[in-house]
Amino acid sequence: MSLSTDVNATITSLRHEVCALHAELTRYQLVIWTAGNVSARVPDRDLMVIKPSGVSYDDLTPENMVLCDLHGRVLEGEHAPSSDTDAQAYVYRQMPHVGGVVHTHSTYATAWASRGEAIPCALTMQADEFGGEIPVGPFALIGDDSIGRGIVETLTASRSAAVLMKQHGVFTIGKDARSAVKAAVMCEDVARTVHIARQLGEPIRIEPTDVDSLFDRYQNVYGQKDNR
Amino acid sequence: MSLSTDVNATITSLRHEVCALHAELTRYQLVIWTAGNVSARVPDRDLMVIKPSGVSYDDLTPENMVLCDLHGRVLEGEHAPSSDTDAQAYVYRQMPHVGGVVHTHSTYATAWASRGEAIPCALTMQADEFGGEIPVGPFALIGDDSIGRGIVETLTASRSAAVLMKQHGVFTIGKDARSAVKAAVMCEDVARTVHIARQLGEPIRIEPTDVDSLFDRYQNVYGQKDNR
Amino acid sequence: MSLSTDVNATITSLRHEVCALHAELTRYQLVIWTAGNVSARVPDRDLMVIKPSGVSYDDLTPENMVLCDLHGRVLEGEHAPSSDTDAQAYVYRQMPHVGGVVHTHSTYATAWASRGEAIPCALTMQADEFGGEIPVGPFALIGDDSIGRGIVETLTASRSAAVLMKQHGVFTIGKDARSAVKAAVMCEDVARTVHIARQLGEPIRIEPTDVDSLFDRYQNVYGQKDNR
Amino acid sequence: MSLSTDVNATITSLRHEVCALHAELTRYQLVIWTAGNVSARVPDRDLMVIKPSGVSYDDLTPENMVLCDLHGRVLEGEHAPSSDTDAQAYVYRQMPHVGGVVHTHSTYATAWASRGEAIPCALTMQADEFGGEIPVGPFALIGDDSIGRGIVETLTASRSAAVLMKQHGVFTIGKDARSAVKAAVMCEDVARTVHIARQLGEPIRIEPTDVDSLFDRYQNVYGQKDNR
Repeated sequence: MSLSTDVNATITSLRHEVCALHAELTRYQLVIWTAGNVSARVPDRDLMVIKPSGVSYDDLTPENMVLCDLHGRVLEGEHAPSSDTDAQAYVYRQMPHVGGVVHTHSTYATAWASRGEAIPCALTMQADEFGGEIPVGPFALIGDDSIGRGIVETLTASRSAAVLMKQHGVFTIGKDARSAVKAAVMCEDVARTVHIARQLGEPIRIEPTDVDSLFDRYQNVYGQKDNR
Repeated sequence: MSLSTDVNATITSLRHEVCALHAELTRYQLVIWTAGNVSARVPDRDLMVIKPSGVSYDDLTPENMVLCDLHGRVLEGEHAPSSDTDAQAYVYRQMPHVGGVVHTHSTYATAWASRGEAIPCALTMQADEFGGEIPVGPFALIGDDSIGRGIVETLTASRSAAVLMKQHGVFTIGKDARSAVKAAVMCEDVARTVHIARQLGEPIRIEPTDVDSLFDRYQNVYGQKDNR
Repeated sequence: MSLSTDVNATITSLRHEVCALHAELTRYQLVIWTAGNVSARVPDRDLMVIKPSGVSYDDLTPENMVLCDLHGRVLEGEHAPSSDTDAQAYVYRQMPHVGGVVHTHSTYATAWASRGEAIPCALTMQADEFGGEIPVGPFALIGDDSIGRGIVETLTASRSAAVLMKQHGVFTIGKDARSAVKAAVMCEDVARTVHIARQLGEPIRIEPTDVDSLFDRYQNVYGQKDNR
Repeated sequence: MSLSTDVNATITSLRHEVCALHAELTRYQLVIWTAGNVSARVPDRDLMVIKPSGVSYDDLTPENMVLCDLHGRVLEGEHAPSSDTDAQAYVYRQMPHVGGVVHTHSTYATAWASRGEAIPCALTMQADEFGGEIPVGPFALIGDDSIGRGIVETLTASRSAAVLMKQHGVFTIGKDARSAVKAAVMCEDVARTVHIARQLGEPIRIEPTDVDSLFDRYQNVYGQKDNR
């Protein structure tokens, strides 16, 4: 495939970013062995960069990240792409504002998923980041578009950047790969804290108007202008 | 702003101290991503040094700490200060003996907070450090003085150096930033241990006279003379 | 003992591999102190390489790994072999397709074992890796073949690569030592996630036909061709 | 104080050992801040080496370990000794076979302690290391011999090397400081695993005759001859 110099520079930069972001997944213990991955859309192109399948986090390099089109076909890379590539490619095809996708089986979020239960909004940081409860998507087998479709349908019906796929794990989205990783980190933290709260009683839901006000402020005001 | 050489030396020293203390928050896993912060009062000045907003712990330097007045207005620093600056400034204005403030969403303490439940005093180390139960403060939205007011009213009515702000997280105070960080570390440890104790039965409250005797000894005798 | 040059090269290589794999046990906190071990069969020989007994993980070297025959008799090594050598040797004698064995007391898996309860299959990654529930083996005292026999009988009656030995801990098998370590890591992750799910309700079992389809795909398609 | 050259060499060696062993307490997350300590008896002398009070684990050096007599009086050292020195000195005075003592508030063991509940023997590794249940000692205030007396009375009536002091934390003993640290690590692991087992049902007690047989074997056979 022949790509312009500019696009190649962008892809190289995304290879470095996607590779480096996997270290956040291990730092926050969201993944074990090879079971979780990050991808990024190449802006304005029908392309994505994603983790190779079955390769240990210690062995990831910018060079072994895989470049695919948005149907999961490999364009550059000696390795097979993550087995979640089809699901993530589907998300990029259907949700043009999404620039990054993350998949984990992080413990507490996956525990909610295995009961098929959404996480109620009982923490200000959950209102800030997710704008309400974190929803559950359908059970789906790997192999066709059903995982991708489940993700897109669930997230389209919600303000949340995270979905708990039933009996499976978590998918998060963001405007770029870093935002999607942040959502994965926050999702597990919220899942854990609300789980622990519920072990000894009932966490108190935040009033919907307060949820709205927290979500609006956080999405529009928080952080440095260049670091949202 | 023109400050004397002495004050500038103090501020430089506090920039280093406040920056370095954030490493204790990550070491003890009290924070994720950018969600937690430390501040210090500049002694005898209406000034404070605090973490910049939305900056990763890996990227903190003494130089990017932000110097504010006690109404949260930035005096030195290219970054916006923590979104918790107004709350912490309010604490410094109202509680002159406080030299440091810490905010976290540490998991177990926040779980108690999300149920709106104080932590009963069932451990000698809790009596030592907090002098009794760790109290709950009100639910409050960010944006005006309500968080600060909730912290000050709750801590004024208690011997505790930590308050669980309802559905939100933890604020701790100390004579300096290091003491406030210690209180944040101890608060999570107590919150976790008492939670786990209660999962299988009822932790036994320590008798109030024993709590008093433990608190008095610890506050007056423990540790090296220069390292309390 | 006189071994050919080729076999000696294989043994040296296995000493390095077995030694290095112990770092995965500590990385994922599956073991404490000296309580857990990895072994590998020497292909096509009635020999195995195993951790020395009572030696700290920090002090392991390829050289202090112990070479035994498949009755646990030491052929090379100044240290006594792991006290689990007899059990693992029994597994190699009875299950010729097994190239690696791992033993841990990882927390959540051992908690299921102490209740004598199998882990129901409620997660797609459990279906992928274990093909169904993770079964319980009998209580057995150390000192004769009863532990080994319990492992073999339980694993022979199951697709699982992991067995929870009652009131004791976990044994896992694989085509090589790395696969057995992976199974030990996945077993604890599954044990933890399903435990946490069940704390607040009932995890939903995956339908047997879906378990079969997930297991078949994962065992035959997943990962790089040379990295399964 | 004038000590012979031999004794000075022994003391120097114990300063290094006691200092280094604190790294095992932090590695296994048995302690936070400065809240836990290791001591060693100087063999054949009425002396002990112990952690200084209120000093961070990062700042420990062989030189700042404190040398005391067995009534807690400082013989060498610029720092005050641990506030637990009196309790540990009492143990050395009353139990001549004890060469090391460790104190922690490790989370799960302290949770059992806060309910005043012994840990039932439901794991082979607990039978191996502790020879049965881990017992509870009385609630005792710091300041006289009551903590030390509670430890000694409880451990004298048991085979266990660990005691859960009610509403307080854990003390462990050993033939030397390393053995006492090992007991502290194993105690928390057992406390955690049995706690988690009991969250979802009842862990099955091991039969007393099996406990005896496991304890005898482990105390007499396990490990390298020079590494028990």
